Amino acid sequence: MSPYKQVAIVGVGLLGGSLALAVKKRGLAEQVVGIGRDQTKLDDLVQSGLIDRGTTDLPQGVSEADLVVVCTPVETVGATVNQLLQLAPAGCLLTDVGSTKQAIVEQVAVNPADGPAFVGSHPLAGDHRSGAEYARADLFDGRVVVVTPSEQTSTDATDRMQEFWQACGARVVVMSAAEHDAALAATSHLPHLVASVLAGSTPSEVLELAATGWLDTTRIAAADPTLWRQIFASNRSQVLAALSNFETQLARVRDALAEGDDEQLEQQLAEGKRTRDAVGN
Amino acid sequence: MSPYKQVAIVGVGLLGGSLALAVKKRGLAEQVVGIGRDQTKLDDLVQSGLIDRGTTDLPQGVSEADLVVVCTPVETVGATVNQLLQLAPAGCLLTDVGSTKQAIVEQVAVNPADGPAFVGSHPLAGDHRSGAEYARADLFDGRVVVVTPSEQTSTDATDRMQEFWQACGARVVVMSAAEHDAALAATSHLPHLVASVLAGSTPSEVLELAATGWLDTTRIAAADPTLWRQIFASNRSQVLAALSNFETQLARVRDALAEGDDEQLEQQLAEGKRTRDAVGN
Repeated sequence: MSPYKQVAIVGVGLLGGSLALAVKKRGLAEQVVGIGRDQTKLDDLVQSGLIDRGTTDLPQGVSEADLVVVCTPVETVGATVNQLLQLAPAGCLLTDVGSTKQAIVEQVAVNPADGPAFVGSHPLAGDHRSGAEYARADLFDGRVVVVTPSEQTSTDATDRMQEFWQACGARVVVMSAAEHDAALAATSHLPHLVASVLAGSTPSEVLELAATGWLDTTRIAAADPTLWRQIFASNRSQVLAALSNFETQLARVRDALAEGDDEQLEQQLAEGKRTRDAVGN
Repeated sequence: MSPYKQVAIVGVGLLGGSLALAVKKRGLAEQVVGIGRDQTKLDDLVQSGLIDRGTTDLPQGVSEADLVVVCTPVETVGATVNQLLQLAPAGCLLTDVGSTKQAIVEQVAVNPADGPAFVGSHPLAGDHRSGAEYARADLFDGRVVVVTPSEQTSTDATDRMQEFWQACGARVVVMSAAEHDAALAATSHLPHLVASVLAGSTPSEVLELAATGWLDTTRIAAADPTLWRQIFASNRSQVLAALSNFETQLARVRDALAEGDDEQLEQQLAEGKRTRDAVGN
């Protein structure tokens, strides 16, 4: 028997679509409902077997759900979760997959005592491409999902959330929304900003000579600018702090290079290598 | 019949080893001679079929070569080429695979009129790993090799060099050493510096939350710090110019983020995406 009767996914793009595939492949729900804005696209997703049912009507889509996952752009997550706290059945578990968590926690109303329970999630999985056409059932395999309970989240809701993501193949790390945002500013948002500026600052006339190093370093600059503008805006102070730290380190390397202090330069390159080697792959 | 009687490779690491494999696989030489510092390692490479003969004796190794490729670290290329201009037979073609070219051109003596002819090369191919054990016959397939003739290089030498790299599967771009170094500062050296600082500035306690974006953006930070210190030192002013341009662009993005000018922020992200999308892969 499937652990969930009905899983509803709000926003069926790359992440939502991959989640639908993972849930179906692993038999985690009897039915997967996709909720979106375009009925024709949803009908296509039903046709292709990605979801069992598609609707543009949020109240109708979640009325019988025991798990709702909000996969919309981070800017709209808070408002959608607040709607769901009113719409979803009692006992229903609500989560999202937004890349920043503190802004969402601040927007979400107090969970009603006998209503659905919200706990935030952030799967560290994705792609620089977007859209359900790139969805993959194995997107979460072996990936980390951060689950961010707040003070009002029950232990039960956190445990159920953790079990769900583990059942999807992921490894779960639990921390507060604030801790998550500070960490992700360094491991995700800053690299994105740097990659984007690196790509944008490369003169077009030399792009012919871009090789593996440039391609790797700038790959995520191809991601959706609107989505990333929202991510940066919702984690502004932490991103600025990570950026400031990076700029200071970069200035140290620049000074060593300018002053011909090649020993210092090599030491800093070795420090970068140590950190990179520690992570692997 | 092979186009070359004997190709000598000075320094049989990742690049030199891959070149040996490519030359043998494509039948470009009757014999491939490897020249190194450690006879035991060279014997192993003969054993494994990577080279036909190995020697630690430079004069002996190149005495019958009609093509010598210097694959040693960039710092030592100039001096080695000057030795080879005395040692190699008349008509022999000399090249190197160094990542910077102007410093080498400045070090290389005038080619003797009836002696060997030197013309610099830079294959935009490699790996963040080093060593002949990672050598691959297809390393140059479809990659760009920049050939950098100087004023004293004959058209004949440039043509022969170009034909050799094309025969190895590469696409050749011809430009001056100075043009090459300015371009590579932006497409290779700056990305390396940025990737290294990004890796080194990531707090170790958050590395658990590093995902694809961080992994891609910092991948080349795993390369050999000594080799890269040499590359930076031999292209100091151009790297500093590219870095200065990057820092200015990064400060613009930082200001937009700090001031809440999200429209400007998104425009700059879109600019990065346009450039990245134009290159592809």
